[in-house]
Amino acid sequence: MTSPESAEYCCIAGANGPLTQAEAEAAAARFKALADPMRLRLLSHIAAAECDDVCVCTLTEPLGISQPTVSHHMKKLVEAGLVTREQRGRMAHYSIVPEAFSQIRDIVDVRGLRLA
Amino acid sequence: MTSPESAEYCCIAGANGPLTQAEAEAAAARFKALADPMRLRLLSHIAAAECDDVCVCTLTEPLGISQPTVSHHMKKLVEAGLVTREQRGRMAHYSIVPEAFSQIRDIVDVRGLRLA
Repeated sequence: MTSPESAEYCCIAGANGPLTQAEAEAAAARFKALADPMRLRLLSHIAAAECDDVCVCTLTEPLGISQPTVSHHMKKLVEAGLVTREQRGRMAHYSIVPEAFSQIRDIVDVRGLRLA
Repeated sequence: MTSPESAEYCCIAGANGPLTQAEAEAAAARFKALADPMRLRLLSHIAAAECDDVCVCTLTEPLGISQPTVSHHMKKLVEAGLVTREQRGRMAHYSIVPEAFSQIRDIVDVRGLRLA
């Protein structure tokens, strides 16, 4: 007969094992960059544009925000490694980093919930 | 001949269209809950346990934190709809909500970057 406490214990298996502190910190930094509605909308506009990169000048009007505001948010996404920035003439152009999103997708895969 | 400015314009297509403000706010709230290393580690421990739910009592030792600290973080995950909580006897048990993670995975799908 098991005691009430031991009966409450759950099976802990873990084929991959849980995230390490370093892995969790890296992933949390990316989620922090994504934890903003405007940044998610900016990313979705870049993803919706079916081309290699998107000029900052095309992002202001549909979102109703100024170019400095766009640049501020894009800087956070670049720092998190989610987007790359290339200066072309007077305008910055942004591209999504597919590998970064692939890693995030692996983290939120319920069967894994862990960086590959 | 195009002017330097128009030449800098990028194609904006968007089959699905970009995220609405409401969709972006809902997703950002979930990313905010995930933007914490300890919460990601707790989730990964729950996911690594190959059973329906995990007792709070099994989460303190591997992460080296107190039960109130576990409960604090788990409350944030429950509020974000990522986890459900069930009180059983003296102990809370937590389960992952697969649909919530499926929606997040759709958001970070680079081909979509949009809630389905």
